[in-house]
Amino acid sequence: MNNASALSNLPVRILMGPGPSNVHPRVLKAMATPVIGHLDPEFLRLMDEVRERLRLLFRTRNRFTIAVSGTGSAGMETALVNLLEPGDRILVGVAGVFGERMCDVASRCGAEVVRAEAPWGEIVDPGQIESALKKGEFKAVAIVHAETSTGAHQPIKEIADIAHKSGALVIADTVTSLAGCEVSVDEWEIDVCYSGTQKCLSCPPGLAPITFNDRAMEVVRSRKTKVQSWYLDMSMVERYWGEERFYHHTAPISMIYALAESLSIIFEEGLEKRWERHARLGGALHAGLEAMGLPLLAKKGYRLPMLTSVGIPDGVDDLSIRRRLLAEHNLEIGGGLGAFKGKAWRIGLMGESCSQANLLLVLSALEKLLLAHGVNVHLGSGTTAGLATLEYV
Amino acid sequence: MNNASALSNLPVRILMGPGPSNVHPRVLKAMATPVIGHLDPEFLRLMDEVRERLRLLFRTRNRFTIAVSGTGSAGMETALVNLLEPGDRILVGVAGVFGERMCDVASRCGAEVVRAEAPWGEIVDPGQIESALKKGEFKAVAIVHAETSTGAHQPIKEIADIAHKSGALVIADTVTSLAGCEVSVDEWEIDVCYSGTQKCLSCPPGLAPITFNDRAMEVVRSRKTKVQSWYLDMSMVERYWGEERFYHHTAPISMIYALAESLSIIFEEGLEKRWERHARLGGALHAGLEAMGLPLLAKKGYRLPMLTSVGIPDGVDDLSIRRRLLAEHNLEIGGGLGAFKGKAWRIGLMGESCSQANLLLVLSALEKLLLAHGVNVHLGSGTTAGLATLEYV
Repeated sequence: MNNASALSNLPVRILMGPGPSNVHPRVLKAMATPVIGHLDPEFLRLMDEVRERLRLLFRTRNRFTIAVSGTGSAGMETALVNLLEPGDRILVGVAGVFGERMCDVASRCGAEVVRAEAPWGEIVDPGQIESALKKGEFKAVAIVHAETSTGAHQPIKEIADIAHKSGALVIADTVTSLAGCEVSVDEWEIDVCYSGTQKCLSCPPGLAPITFNDRAMEVVRSRKTKVQSWYLDMSMVERYWGEERFYHHTAPISMIYALAESLSIIFEEGLEKRWERHARLGGALHAGLEAMGLPLLAKKGYRLPMLTSVGIPDGVDDLSIRRRLLAEHNLEIGGGLGAFKGKAWRIGLMGESCSQANLLLVLSALEKLLLAHGVNVHLGSGTTAGLATLEYV
Repeated sequence: MNNASALSNLPVRILMGPGPSNVHPRVLKAMATPVIGHLDPEFLRLMDEVRERLRLLFRTRNRFTIAVSGTGSAGMETALVNLLEPGDRILVGVAGVFGERMCDVASRCGAEVVRAEAPWGEIVDPGQIESALKKGEFKAVAIVHAETSTGAHQPIKEIADIAHKSGALVIADTVTSLAGCEVSVDEWEIDVCYSGTQKCLSCPPGLAPITFNDRAMEVVRSRKTKVQSWYLDMSMVERYWGEERFYHHTAPISMIYALAESLSIIFEEGLEKRWERHARLGGALHAGLEAMGLPLLAKKGYRLPMLTSVGIPDGVDDLSIRRRLLAEHNLEIGGGLGAFKGKAWRIGLMGESCSQANLLLVLSALEKLLLAHGVNVHLGSGTTAGLATLEYV
């Protein structure tokens, strides 16, 4: 078989969907670093550095802070399978696909799942959490900080405060938020927090940064039953990432290289500056889309800067626009999931993808294509409003 | 934080441990390919190509042939959690660490695990499997083809034949064998077969190629209970890798690039030629080590070419030799696991690492260091015997 691989002819895209985001050339180059052994002292030194920088990123002093050898969804599963045992009760905030996914994963642990629901695009009201918690004892409350299916920014600090008063552990999904807006694990007293690498970290998908505080690790260590996943059993993985260096599974070496370089880039920019960049450009995107007459689907005041859900005008075909963006501009935006399928686009401004050039490209390309599809859009309305916002921030 | 990362100063190693093996520069370069979206039509085309080439590698026509988004251990967990339900009985061949691991993972599925044991370095006797199967009904028989902790080559075809006569499914772990010696999934009638990328495929760790035949997928689809792992639920993952392209989790894009390039390299060499290269150099390593007076720990006639366990001479300190190999030769070999800890070295000749230059290096470096540590070794005895074997093959 000597057929050329499709690999040699892949296009270069501008990634403005819900992730992956564009990866900096330095990170791509890092992955080309020759592989060394997962127990090589020099690799272990790099792991220690990654742990220390992940602590800075999560704003935590948690000893147990690592990168799970799987994508963000493996991070979700890690949080839930390690904390939950059959019969445990968990309260899950559900206002989109990823809250739903948490319920599915928790129920596979044999847990009793209670849902605190809100309509798509809305936030899960802290008052709702409070009343649900009064109706019984819960081991944990789980919430998606940045709901990637809607673009809503959930009030996680308030929810964490309420949960702790009831004695429940707090699990936070920060897959889309981490490195793009404030995530303060210690200050907010989040017990288990996980993320993914392919969103605002601008690293390829494949790792799930995660942190457990001592209270959560104590729960893991004092389980009555074994964690149902051997691969994601943190009491075993801890022995490899910790001082003991006991072999568990072979770490995905090249992905750790990529994460190390991404973390370098993040801290060279500065974490607060990075949040501010996302806030500024996200705000400009919102202004631009609204100026074009398009509805933003996340509740006002709770809109994420890095992921924006926008309604597709009546009569416009989702796929034909997205196909033209890809074909004519090499530009990827995301379609809607679940309740928003065919009704919304999801536009990401994450990490390296979050730039003024990309903001202007997506606004002007959408203006042009919507006009071509018969929507009444003024050319320049979106870009002008977006730029104006940038000037005045 | 502007400290230089440990990444910028990593050494270049010759990897002759139990994996990872050395990665070809073309594969490293492939990982530096810009990331595109996991639902991009061009990425989906690459996935199709990878599936087709994995089928050739496993020598199967199984429709369900994919790469799991985790390392080889995630492949093991995928096989077991998808097939087993609570109360199911499984017979596991145990003759080393990875057979033990299968028992642990299967018991976490709520399965009743029966062990067919053999001493470390020995093979699990097909007759033993036969008598165990007579003692009750089993849903599956699981066996590690190439036991990485001992270097023994298990008689998997015979075991599969016996298992099928009893009506049990056959699960084979080919993490270390795939692409290094014959693995013929269809001819041997293996129902579920998984592997890892970092051994004889010479790709970085991070993916687990896996294949289920129709009989096995039918078992997955007709389960009474949900698969306990959401992340590894193949009935869901099938919808993403299959024609439906339904989003499940974000694929580890850059790792798929690496796998695609590794597969190109494998089929440019030719699969049978690759097996032959491993057999020839593995045989030379065995001859060389025995000529140095060192005992091979896997049973004669059942020794793997790509992974050799060799006894450490009395009075020689495991770690001090391995540290010197690393410091003086940038050469990594593996230590013993479990029963062999401190008593054996594990020398890999896998994929790119399986070369005549590496064979001669490891033999001569060991000769020199053992002599320096007071062992009675003739300089040149190992390399001479190794070379002689190569001449006459």
